[in-house]
Amino acid sequence: MAEELLSLLRPDLRDLVPYAVPHYPGYIKLDANENPYDFAPEVLAEVVRRLSGQTFTRYPDPEATELRRRIAAYTGMAPENILAGNGSDELILNLFLSFGGGGRVVITPPTFSMYAIHSRIAGAAVAAVARREDFSLDLAALLREARAPGTRVVVVCSPNNPTGNTVPREAVEALAAEAAGLVLLDEAYAEFAGESCCDLVRRYPRLVVLRTFSKAFGLAGLRVGYLVADPAVIAGLLKVKQPFNLNSFSQLAAVTVLEYQPLFRQRMEEIIANREELYRRMKQIGGVEVFPSRANFILFRTPLPAEKVYAGLLARRVLIRNVAGPGLERCLRVTVGTPAENEAFLQALAEVVAEGEGSSGV
Amino acid sequence: MAEELLSLLRPDLRDLVPYAVPHYPGYIKLDANENPYDFAPEVLAEVVRRLSGQTFTRYPDPEATELRRRIAAYTGMAPENILAGNGSDELILNLFLSFGGGGRVVITPPTFSMYAIHSRIAGAAVAAVARREDFSLDLAALLREARAPGTRVVVVCSPNNPTGNTVPREAVEALAAEAAGLVLLDEAYAEFAGESCCDLVRRYPRLVVLRTFSKAFGLAGLRVGYLVADPAVIAGLLKVKQPFNLNSFSQLAAVTVLEYQPLFRQRMEEIIANREELYRRMKQIGGVEVFPSRANFILFRTPLPAEKVYAGLLARRVLIRNVAGPGLERCLRVTVGTPAENEAFLQALAEVVAEGEGSSGV
Repeated sequence: MAEELLSLLRPDLRDLVPYAVPHYPGYIKLDANENPYDFAPEVLAEVVRRLSGQTFTRYPDPEATELRRRIAAYTGMAPENILAGNGSDELILNLFLSFGGGGRVVITPPTFSMYAIHSRIAGAAVAAVARREDFSLDLAALLREARAPGTRVVVVCSPNNPTGNTVPREAVEALAAEAAGLVLLDEAYAEFAGESCCDLVRRYPRLVVLRTFSKAFGLAGLRVGYLVADPAVIAGLLKVKQPFNLNSFSQLAAVTVLEYQPLFRQRMEEIIANREELYRRMKQIGGVEVFPSRANFILFRTPLPAEKVYAGLLARRVLIRNVAGPGLERCLRVTVGTPAENEAFLQALAEVVAEGEGSSGV
Repeated sequence: MAEELLSLLRPDLRDLVPYAVPHYPGYIKLDANENPYDFAPEVLAEVVRRLSGQTFTRYPDPEATELRRRIAAYTGMAPENILAGNGSDELILNLFLSFGGGGRVVITPPTFSMYAIHSRIAGAAVAAVARREDFSLDLAALLREARAPGTRVVVVCSPNNPTGNTVPREAVEALAAEAAGLVLLDEAYAEFAGESCCDLVRRYPRLVVLRTFSKAFGLAGLRVGYLVADPAVIAGLLKVKQPFNLNSFSQLAAVTVLEYQPLFRQRMEEIIANREELYRRMKQIGGVEVFPSRANFILFRTPLPAEKVYAGLLARRVLIRNVAGPGLERCLRVTVGTPAENEAFLQALAEVVAEGEGSSGV
């Protein structure tokens, strides 16, 4: 019966493996690049205060008018340049559905796995231009692929997940100037790098910059993403957007956090300082290769198989992400947590690596 | 520039007109089949109480475990039969993307316009089997189309939006038994009809029943929909579902409202009683043809062009929906509001119809 039903599924999706989300309640959770600082009580209190003026019984504002106005001010763009989504995931899918379907989406692995998954869902072919060994873009090869007819969207993540490095502004400009289609620049972690290319949208209308409230503003649970784009690109996206994609509460919460920017900015600074300290300490663990990061996570490589490190950390109740794969052999990614979480991770990692070296003789 | 950018859009979407959402703040809003009763203060208080245990900084439960458990109890099914979505809109798109794309989706107009829009976005061809003049299904024609190779999803809405009539259980069974693909039964308004076909999913694994918290439970602003299906169908849907599609707050609010069922059920009863009273009163307005409804809205036809009735009501600060089109000539749809809202609508409608008759001599 199950087999008969699955035979009804779109053939090109049959072998698609969905994005996996492990669940280990009570563990130190450093696997999802979340903000380790809990929602500030004063911000939560303000959100609750505003709840009384809400009518959940009515459909949400389909245009997220107030939120887009605030995001415009935050990014230095106009509300007409902003589209809000149910997390940036939804915006990635919408962009691929509207501009990618039937054509080719170019990605630059190793990078965020969702680009390839969403391309396939949207019916776009995926073309990969691998990054160099140091994770920098192979710009010449990428430009060739970007210019090729049939290329509808080129996706670049900066700082890149999971490698942590940024893409030079000049590379973004070259891509946006020469691509046959759109260029999606995913800046989910931009606040931790202290730089953004949002303003380039004015000069390069094919550039689309993707941002999120999930990381720097700690709203992962409420799913608020947005993109900065030319109004004509947004007009195209509106053809596929669910009219009521972003619920009223998340709109309200995102508007509110933008009123507490100094508080969040202070926490971003703390996360950046914690990242530098974590990086310094990880490098002291013998055999661990640590890659510099401009985001809120750190990529590293050990002499052991990544599964072994992952399992060893899990056994010590620390959850991180195993990102091993082509170009990322024996690599894992750890989110920058609170100092106490980082300390627990460092101790666990040192133990796992020492144990592995003892047993395997590496 | 705008034209050049739009030339990058998927060609088959260029003439797609997005679902329109009018915005008239302060007007009597009877256009979106929302629940007219505001969120009960005790339910809101309970939601707020539970907020303190929430960590918005963490991604939401991708499986909506607790919510699915509650929905399973509410529908009399198992959690494995339930998939929760960011409104039922998202689930419609996901079903068409996973099971419809590249094939044919069969719809039964006049019906909810989103089925055709989402079919096109998902890259499915739309085949229409028109309802009879009394809005009942042309079952023989529909079965022929359902059995045709290439048919991937047959969509039936019951009670049907905007006509208000239900589909007989036997018709659902016949379709589910004989369709070449899946049968999507949209029961968004089932609570107002007092009947459901959820249980048929056990006997007919090709049947998918779609439900929502937006109507009977008044959560339109929070976007919570769900579907009841065979676990193998859900496995297919999970391939295209955004992993974190439903935010933490909406999950929490939906769990909470399901603990206040007697309260919501009492309001559903009130809405049903108000519907019957509204129906009775509308029939007393000369020249107005009113169609019986099992939902929380009423379809009607006047001798005037629908735009004229719509504009006349708007001028009196009453917003309803103009649904005029093939099979719905001179038809509009009004949501059942509070008694006071219904009264204002009745008076405005009587005035508009009287005025129209005076001026046009109809």
